Amino acid sequence: MNSQTVEQYMEQLGVQARQASRQAAAAESGAKNTALLEAAAAIEDQAVLLATENKKDLDAGRAKGLDAALIDRLELTAERITGMAEGLRQVAALPDPVGEISGMSYRPSGIQVGHMRVPLGVIGIIYESRPNVTADAAALCLKSGNACILRGGSEALYSNLAVAKCMGLGLQAAGLSETLVQVVNTTDRAAVGKLLTMADYVDVIIPRGGKGLIERVMSDSKIPVIKHLHGVCHVYIDDQADMDKAVAIAVNSKTHRYGVCNAMETLLVAESIAGKVLPVLAEHYTKAGVEMRGCKKTCGILTDINTATAADWDEEYLAPILAIRIVDDIDQAIEHINQHGSQHTDSIVTENYSKSRRFTREVDSSSVMVNASTRFADGFEYGLGAEIGISTDKLHVRGPVGLEGLTSQKYIVLGDGHIRQ
Amino acid sequence: MNSQTVEQYMEQLGVQARQASRQAAAAESGAKNTALLEAAAAIEDQAVLLATENKKDLDAGRAKGLDAALIDRLELTAERITGMAEGLRQVAALPDPVGEISGMSYRPSGIQVGHMRVPLGVIGIIYESRPNVTADAAALCLKSGNACILRGGSEALYSNLAVAKCMGLGLQAAGLSETLVQVVNTTDRAAVGKLLTMADYVDVIIPRGGKGLIERVMSDSKIPVIKHLHGVCHVYIDDQADMDKAVAIAVNSKTHRYGVCNAMETLLVAESIAGKVLPVLAEHYTKAGVEMRGCKKTCGILTDINTATAADWDEEYLAPILAIRIVDDIDQAIEHINQHGSQHTDSIVTENYSKSRRFTREVDSSSVMVNASTRFADGFEYGLGAEIGISTDKLHVRGPVGLEGLTSQKYIVLGDGHIRQ
Repeated sequence: MNSQTVEQYMEQLGVQARQASRQAAAAESGAKNTALLEAAAAIEDQAVLLATENKKDLDAGRAKGLDAALIDRLELTAERITGMAEGLRQVAALPDPVGEISGMSYRPSGIQVGHMRVPLGVIGIIYESRPNVTADAAALCLKSGNACILRGGSEALYSNLAVAKCMGLGLQAAGLSETLVQVVNTTDRAAVGKLLTMADYVDVIIPRGGKGLIERVMSDSKIPVIKHLHGVCHVYIDDQADMDKAVAIAVNSKTHRYGVCNAMETLLVAESIAGKVLPVLAEHYTKAGVEMRGCKKTCGILTDINTATAADWDEEYLAPILAIRIVDDIDQAIEHINQHGSQHTDSIVTENYSKSRRFTREVDSSSVMVNASTRFADGFEYGLGAEIGISTDKLHVRGPVGLEGLTSQKYIVLGDGHIRQ
Repeated sequence: MNSQTVEQYMEQLGVQARQASRQAAAAESGAKNTALLEAAAAIEDQAVLLATENKKDLDAGRAKGLDAALIDRLELTAERITGMAEGLRQVAALPDPVGEISGMSYRPSGIQVGHMRVPLGVIGIIYESRPNVTADAAALCLKSGNACILRGGSEALYSNLAVAKCMGLGLQAAGLSETLVQVVNTTDRAAVGKLLTMADYVDVIIPRGGKGLIERVMSDSKIPVIKHLHGVCHVYIDDQADMDKAVAIAVNSKTHRYGVCNAMETLLVAESIAGKVLPVLAEHYTKAGVEMRGCKKTCGILTDINTATAADWDEEYLAPILAIRIVDDIDQAIEHINQHGSQHTDSIVTENYSKSRRFTREVDSSSVMVNASTRFADGFEYGLGAEIGISTDKLHVRGPVGLEGLTSQKYIVLGDGHIRQ
């Protein structure tokens, strides 16, 4: 960085990214795919370099006393290196969303009007320790015709730069500018502050990480943000639920994985079926080691569990803990979800047609499900091919964000000398 | 407002709007249409009340010394009252976007996944002096299933409250809550500041007005904003343009109306055709009273016009002034537009197939046109039925914003007891 300030350095990245974004937007699918496939090959060819650079980060991390979980996330094992290359190939195989024209129709004036799907421009991604995010995020941005500025965790800097080098080799091989993918090469925290204010050069910020990071970005960013904040997901077991489905879904939604945003955190059960379904579920949860916290009525049925406090209804445990509330009916269930949920993913278990319709219409969450596990809320399960994250925002894109979420639509108007009268 | 502070008052509006938004989202199309038609009838029935309340604003405005243009915008003439009622009826006649399901397909896991179009929730609209915006904006928000909080100009308060009363009568007649449409009943400027930070109660802010207002909202809002900032629109006359079309489009784009965002502000002309087309255009512009400001080359052809300064290329005149630049070719034209334009509306005049394709792909504006006047960039011309404004943002919605721009899409997932393996 020589004598440049961090601000000047970031500004330079911004100018380069904006310029590169024009090339990215106009690049043909074939060139973008070549870049991705060549980058995948480079990642495999450069496995030794990646391991060496990764070791620098690991050694520094251990010296700094990072905990075992963080060191694990930081590590680029042989398997993860192969996984990165495989990920790039998968993105290359996806259809290119850019340039898709839809809805073209003639208007009474004679002009023809429709939409064309276009890249957002420059995407700034701020993430934490996993270096494989560098490859994943760069691939999705490139395929969707965007330039990106990637700011990873400071503890992964050497690894991220090595991954970026491989991406650069891929871009070069395809005749594209390396500045389409830029990793911020400084651990100075001022770089993030500057990135969040460069509205002239950056069109959208995507933070990926813990709540602390997301909240800082939300409060400081002068640029629109696509973010994932909380995952307080619910399953509501209706009085007309099929017992087997209810048990399967409520167990899977909670115990399939605990530390994920689409795991159920609160179970709602209709009062008239609670006495029948809760004891069966409790057996499963106890066996899986899940701590249950119930409302008063729940504790009347499951007499040996703890009572939930008011705070439990808003809690994202990300752990083997489950809040359970008995509700009067679907009205109270919907009210509870809209009040305490995080608009992420909520599911009803019912055989009743009218109640399934009401639930899908009235629950205001990014994924609303009927008779399915909340764990399905995922870009791969939804067929997006890949995901850059899950949005809990309401504007632009809700739920799993794939290539299309990294694009927008402009109007195109075709005429033959038409003027407005 | 009794002893409430402005903050408490706004908070109360927010709580009421959030609650009403649930009703709005679940309301059937029929009920929303009834509300709109009954509100239209109320506006006509209450013409005397509207005129009386409007007179209070007009008298106060005149006493404060508001200029004639502002007084004109403020006035609710009989024609404008009829226009408001007619506008409500037109929105009632539009198809309801809410609940539309698209893209439902089965995934390998057996779940069925698709999108459902849903309201954004609560929309805050901040606007200036025209009281008819109250009816227009309320109608679009209601039809798209949103609750709204409307903050008009302080000089139009009595008029806006009277319009809101008519909207309330319509909502009542349809069995809907009057709190679906709330006009902020205070001229205290702190109300706007509070509105922009109530992220728990307001999902999106739409400012409508001059640049000062937009810039204040952009800088202060803690809530996502859909906005229209500048309209620096271009027409590029290619060397392969049809002369008659070029003249018609360049004249119409500039002179059809001057004070509008989709009027051309800069004309770009390919060098090899400039000597032929510019003298013809200059005659039209001179006759229309348009002041031309040219680049050096332009001034070599049109010898009696002023030279443009660097600032002219970024200027939104909103007046009978036009900047003219001669460019080498389409590359320089696209570069000029992407550098100096406001990503609003830009048009190429050409008979060349390849260049029309390049222009539509590479110009990064909300409306990109071929052989059509920039004046077509309009929700009615595009067939949206109505528009709440034109977005120059890149996320969520670009260009004219109709009902669909006030909605988002959530995922719905249908299963039959499906769990994730």
